[in-house]
Amino acid sequence: MSSLDALAENLPEGRLLTDPDVIDSYARDRTFLEPGKALAVVLARTRDDVVTTMRWASEHRVPVVPRGAGTGLAGGATASEGSVILSLARMTAITELSPADEIAVVEPGVITADLDRAAREHGLMYAPDPSSYEISTIGGNLATNAGGLRCVKYGVTRDSALGLEVVLADGRVLNTGRRTMKGVTGYDLTGLFVGSEGTLGVITSATVRLRRAPAAPPATFAAEFGSLRDAAAAVSAIMAAGCQPSLMEMLDRATLKAIDDWRNIGLEDSTQAMLIGQSDAADSQAAITAMGRLCEASGATFVAVSSSPAEAEELIAVRRMAYQAKERLGACLVEDVCVPRSALPDMISAIEAAAARHDVMICTVAHAGDGNLHPVFVFDHGTAEPPAQVWAAADEVFTKALEFGGTLTGEHGVGVLKRRWLSLESGPVTADVQQGIKAVFDPLGILNPGKAI
Amino acid sequence: MSSLDALAENLPEGRLLTDPDVIDSYARDRTFLEPGKALAVVLARTRDDVVTTMRWASEHRVPVVPRGAGTGLAGGATASEGSVILSLARMTAITELSPADEIAVVEPGVITADLDRAAREHGLMYAPDPSSYEISTIGGNLATNAGGLRCVKYGVTRDSALGLEVVLADGRVLNTGRRTMKGVTGYDLTGLFVGSEGTLGVITSATVRLRRAPAAPPATFAAEFGSLRDAAAAVSAIMAAGCQPSLMEMLDRATLKAIDDWRNIGLEDSTQAMLIGQSDAADSQAAITAMGRLCEASGATFVAVSSSPAEAEELIAVRRMAYQAKERLGACLVEDVCVPRSALPDMISAIEAAAARHDVMICTVAHAGDGNLHPVFVFDHGTAEPPAQVWAAADEVFTKALEFGGTLTGEHGVGVLKRRWLSLESGPVTADVQQGIKAVFDPLGILNPGKAI
Repeated sequence: MSSLDALAENLPEGRLLTDPDVIDSYARDRTFLEPGKALAVVLARTRDDVVTTMRWASEHRVPVVPRGAGTGLAGGATASEGSVILSLARMTAITELSPADEIAVVEPGVITADLDRAAREHGLMYAPDPSSYEISTIGGNLATNAGGLRCVKYGVTRDSALGLEVVLADGRVLNTGRRTMKGVTGYDLTGLFVGSEGTLGVITSATVRLRRAPAAPPATFAAEFGSLRDAAAAVSAIMAAGCQPSLMEMLDRATLKAIDDWRNIGLEDSTQAMLIGQSDAADSQAAITAMGRLCEASGATFVAVSSSPAEAEELIAVRRMAYQAKERLGACLVEDVCVPRSALPDMISAIEAAAARHDVMICTVAHAGDGNLHPVFVFDHGTAEPPAQVWAAADEVFTKALEFGGTLTGEHGVGVLKRRWLSLESGPVTADVQQGIKAVFDPLGILNPGKAI
Repeated sequence: MSSLDALAENLPEGRLLTDPDVIDSYARDRTFLEPGKALAVVLARTRDDVVTTMRWASEHRVPVVPRGAGTGLAGGATASEGSVILSLARMTAITELSPADEIAVVEPGVITADLDRAAREHGLMYAPDPSSYEISTIGGNLATNAGGLRCVKYGVTRDSALGLEVVLADGRVLNTGRRTMKGVTGYDLTGLFVGSEGTLGVITSATVRLRRAPAAPPATFAAEFGSLRDAAAAVSAIMAAGCQPSLMEMLDRATLKAIDDWRNIGLEDSTQAMLIGQSDAADSQAAITAMGRLCEASGATFVAVSSSPAEAEELIAVRRMAYQAKERLGACLVEDVCVPRSALPDMISAIEAAAARHDVMICTVAHAGDGNLHPVFVFDHGTAEPPAQVWAAADEVFTKALEFGGTLTGEHGVGVLKRRWLSLESGPVTADVQQGIKAVFDPLGILNPGKAI
């Protein structure tokens, strides 16, 4: 414990927490994974706290697990044995918000939706909106390159990150990127840190791009289908017509059933899938009407269209209930495959086949416009680890996604959960290069070891 | 020469060229820089040619200078002494074009505009359009992270690059990225290669994102102003109003005068600046009318608005003549600073002040919507190198750009020309990290040495 004393001495009062219950409360993310036993939590409030922690960790070769709000779904922020947990959740300042330049400079602990709200006071928005955006942090979003509902139109977190301040493993401070909309001075280090899941450095400030918020509330449609393939065909038709939805979500029957059992949404027996779409364009009403017609042409059994914000909220509410509804059914392994859009129907069939073959309950929601599916494997709360048939079904889903030209993870990151499939997607040359890059930034291997790569 | 014989032996007939005149014709880009004496040119036609060349170069420790069409403006493709020039210009296949997935897979020698035309046959477009896009290659665009006129709406080359096939310095083949719209498996190696100017590997194939082409031709405005600051104010007003132009170019009087002297565009004595804007949105006519009104409100002395393609072409033609008009005046040092949009008027004043103080002719065009300015320093054709006062003026321009929170290069790259200012923008930690990354990919330092970092 003497090495921890040295850290305590160099940090301001109250930043180092060693109470086992407190440590435990910072050790998990939203997966079922059991964390290792961590030594302590550093509750950083300033960049200097992070510098102090990393210098100490390098000196004593102690692993550091950086974390934001712990809303991750892949285990990236799960504490490892003998580590110090470095929480950035208290670094919550919006340092600058420039409407003229459409940028903000923020600390990593800023809640995603808070930044969006601050931007909207100036007619702007912060576009990335992972489903957890009311509780997730910008730092965590950057670490996983989080996506969200709006990214079908506005791109992922990477597309809003202009520059970063990063504390390296040895405590040096690196500034990457810029405040401008374009720039090619040197290698793209900003892009390298985004999605690196805390394995290359600790982000202590970010310059992010804001966008002009739409002038009017979005127009919304919800459509029901007798088959998932019809719904997928509607998505293809909508995207091919250039309708530019700002949201395009798909829910399968298992998900709808879970929601209906919980909140009674009047689910029809014939409904196998629901699509929910929005347009925030200047001609949103025309765009959404066109989308509704394309749903009908693709075989929708029911289509509702609205441009009233209250009605839109009602239509979207079903989507927002999806995850909670599933959590009521059991423990969840949430996956995140992404396939080329044309493979969406085949991927859906493959998920249904895997569920049937392995007798596993899989509820799927999808950011359908991006080809990004979240098959949620539901299993008994009683078991700490998913049972063998869940892993077998997941294995089948991943293998199929890669066969279709897809990827293991669209927006959640690799974390711990997806490492077992990593070699299926990336060959030995990639692994070699990634290890080389890791060694440049973290030669002692103390930054979030065992994660991401 | 025996080492070159070994290379000739391993390449198919006709791929290795050693005629001095031929070498000289592949040794330059569009700068005034005098190349070093290269040993040979490899005219690669396949990935295997590139693998063979890099294996040989690693074995014999010969520097390799990869190049596309040589349209670069920073010296990135200038041959270095004792190097082998590796031309990718003959690898011109569009391997795949998938309208359903809105992607294309292309070899690096594909001409940018050719890809765009191929995409348009399917109602799609390839968005990045550097001014040289009729002669530049996708490979060169990727190497410099090229921008262009449309990137005010659609982003730079990076924003259209999904995945790459890269031959590493030792001849191994690395595949990065994916075919999907989203993905976070491992570090963002695609982003790392984009803009790395041939110093990390040789791109032999790219998977790029296509976008839905606008249904109707764009609407266009051109506006004349009595002062550059008025024009800059109009740009701010247009961007702040959320008009979403698909093009927003500014020309200063020196540029307009050069064009007028060449082609007589009837330039008024009072005109100090011109703005040209386009909208390709569904409501383009309304958007362009709004932009025209904002120009008037900002003091424009004349505004023309049109949605006829022929008239639009006439208005845009002035912009397209800019570079050629300047080349008639003398040799050109083309710079590429980018500043936060709000600093555009101050940056323009700083350029005018530098021109006056150092008695240098500077003609400026700007991708004004992005804050990206191209001050072109014109000097006597007779001198091989720009005279001292040109460097002094350029030095002042760069220093000011950085003072305003800007960057040395928005879209042309660092190449050779901007290396002397690199340390002003990036500190020692950045330099250290970049050298570390370079060493991972190119431990022998044979890939385009002396460029970019």
